[in-house]
Amino acid sequence: MSIILLTTVPREEETMWLDALCTLLPGEDIVLPDRIEDKEAVDLAIVANPPQGVLRTLPNLKWIQSLWAGVDALLGDSTLPEAVPLVRLVDPTLARSMAEAVATHVLALHRNLPVYARQQQKSLWLQHELPLASERHVGILGLGEMGLASAIQLTRLGFNVRGWSRSLKSQEDVKCFSGDEGLSQFLQGLDIVVNLLPLTAETKGILSKSLFDQLPQGASLINFGRGGHQVEGDILEALTRGQLSHAVLDVFSQEPLPEENLLWRHRGVTLLPHVAAPTNPKTAADIVTQNIQRYRSSGLIPKAVERSVGY
Amino acid sequence: MSIILLTTVPREEETMWLDALCTLLPGEDIVLPDRIEDKEAVDLAIVANPPQGVLRTLPNLKWIQSLWAGVDALLGDSTLPEAVPLVRLVDPTLARSMAEAVATHVLALHRNLPVYARQQQKSLWLQHELPLASERHVGILGLGEMGLASAIQLTRLGFNVRGWSRSLKSQEDVKCFSGDEGLSQFLQGLDIVVNLLPLTAETKGILSKSLFDQLPQGASLINFGRGGHQVEGDILEALTRGQLSHAVLDVFSQEPLPEENLLWRHRGVTLLPHVAAPTNPKTAADIVTQNIQRYRSSGLIPKAVERSVGY
Repeated sequence: MSIILLTTVPREEETMWLDALCTLLPGEDIVLPDRIEDKEAVDLAIVANPPQGVLRTLPNLKWIQSLWAGVDALLGDSTLPEAVPLVRLVDPTLARSMAEAVATHVLALHRNLPVYARQQQKSLWLQHELPLASERHVGILGLGEMGLASAIQLTRLGFNVRGWSRSLKSQEDVKCFSGDEGLSQFLQGLDIVVNLLPLTAETKGILSKSLFDQLPQGASLINFGRGGHQVEGDILEALTRGQLSHAVLDVFSQEPLPEENLLWRHRGVTLLPHVAAPTNPKTAADIVTQNIQRYRSSGLIPKAVERSVGY
Repeated sequence: MSIILLTTVPREEETMWLDALCTLLPGEDIVLPDRIEDKEAVDLAIVANPPQGVLRTLPNLKWIQSLWAGVDALLGDSTLPEAVPLVRLVDPTLARSMAEAVATHVLALHRNLPVYARQQQKSLWLQHELPLASERHVGILGLGEMGLASAIQLTRLGFNVRGWSRSLKSQEDVKCFSGDEGLSQFLQGLDIVVNLLPLTAETKGILSKSLFDQLPQGASLINFGRGGHQVEGDILEALTRGQLSHAVLDVFSQEPLPEENLLWRHRGVTLLPHVAAPTNPKTAADIVTQNIQRYRSSGLIPKAVERSVGY
């Protein structure tokens, strides 16, 4: 049996993953697609943005392990074998990193950092009123492992926290909402809305005019989900008319974001190059190793993505 | 007996304090200096940057309550009566606000926000490696109520935290240092140093070349103490040669900072207009009220500033 590593990431990154996995799984035959001798011998695939079409040429594939937490691009690939379980990366380090990113940017907005940065450019000394964190309402769209970790972190910092998810969740000190009818209530009175939803057919384009218009005027948006969640023209329009006062965007419909895109230069936008919760190669390789070792010893395949739902 | 309110803050701010205190202390005669009828009847003074010379004209003053936590300007006033106890504002809300400011800016530096802001100006999409918070070493200069609250907040966010103070303190998960000999050890290997010291003869100018040169190259500085702590020319020089990679400055030798000061325009400086821990009028008025009520009922004067030490 052998394991195929399928990526379209830069060569040095691919080599780093291959070296890490070979070191951690010394008994396994882990190969790149150009080194493959017997396609029938491949029973596992480890993937990071895999090239289209290769997975369906492997007749004995038992399951696919993604090195990334988000699998929306993979599920959008029509050549992905339908019957093979797809396992996404579930790494507690990722959730901690996301919670840290959320805390950083919620605090930055709460503390008016974008306003003071603009004042600095004009040598303007002007103090603004500072509400207590307990007077700010922050809402998290999506209460998966990342959303929950972020919500808990924000409650610890003293914010009023709400969460919204497809099916109703429950978490101490977090006011939970769900479903279409819960969304309007969730949005009402929010100072900051943070998107951490998975990208699915249902959530695509959710960050649009109709959502922004249900927020109080001057609310702020943080999108740490996917570019496909946001309607970029609607964000620019909402910023221009003051419905949104600021947007922190880490993800885009096209990445890297093209140089000519207006979002780069909008004074109401904090633009990040997809760095909110980067995969940590060390912890990710450990988790993939554990998944494979458990499968080899017990035949147990880790919990797979529910394809109809999208995560 | 009456209470004098002595300030040089803007008139609307003075009126706000007077109204708040009169409402909370309905049995007291609280007056502004131009309304005073009998100087001998004044036994208490509430001050916020008081005009020079007035306090010494009040022969029966029992103690002075500052509306601010920092009393360095007041102690520098040679007309301050020597024998009258001076009480500074000790407000837990202030310590919480400072801890929040420290968390905000330590997270911003940890997450490379200044670097990504500069990249945005150039439409540059480039990801930087992100260490875990537990791989970052953050040091707090000063472990009074604000320093301790900040240190505890940072440990909760997962950072490696050290503290330095005049006399040795002890706090779980915070590595404590003290004295001149402890300072070098404290600075060694710090990624970020945060100043929260009181301004005294001993701490004046402490943020200077000799301190910066004991930090690892490329460390960052946050000054939320006083302008008198920092040698502004040394900060600019350390930024220019890369000894400091960034400085977050909230306080200055002259405030408001003059428009022509080079700090406004340095790309390695985040400049804030003295907003780290603003006095909260509501909680401050409550604390002053409690101090006065306790004194009226029991004769107990709150813990006074030790003038030889400076806080």
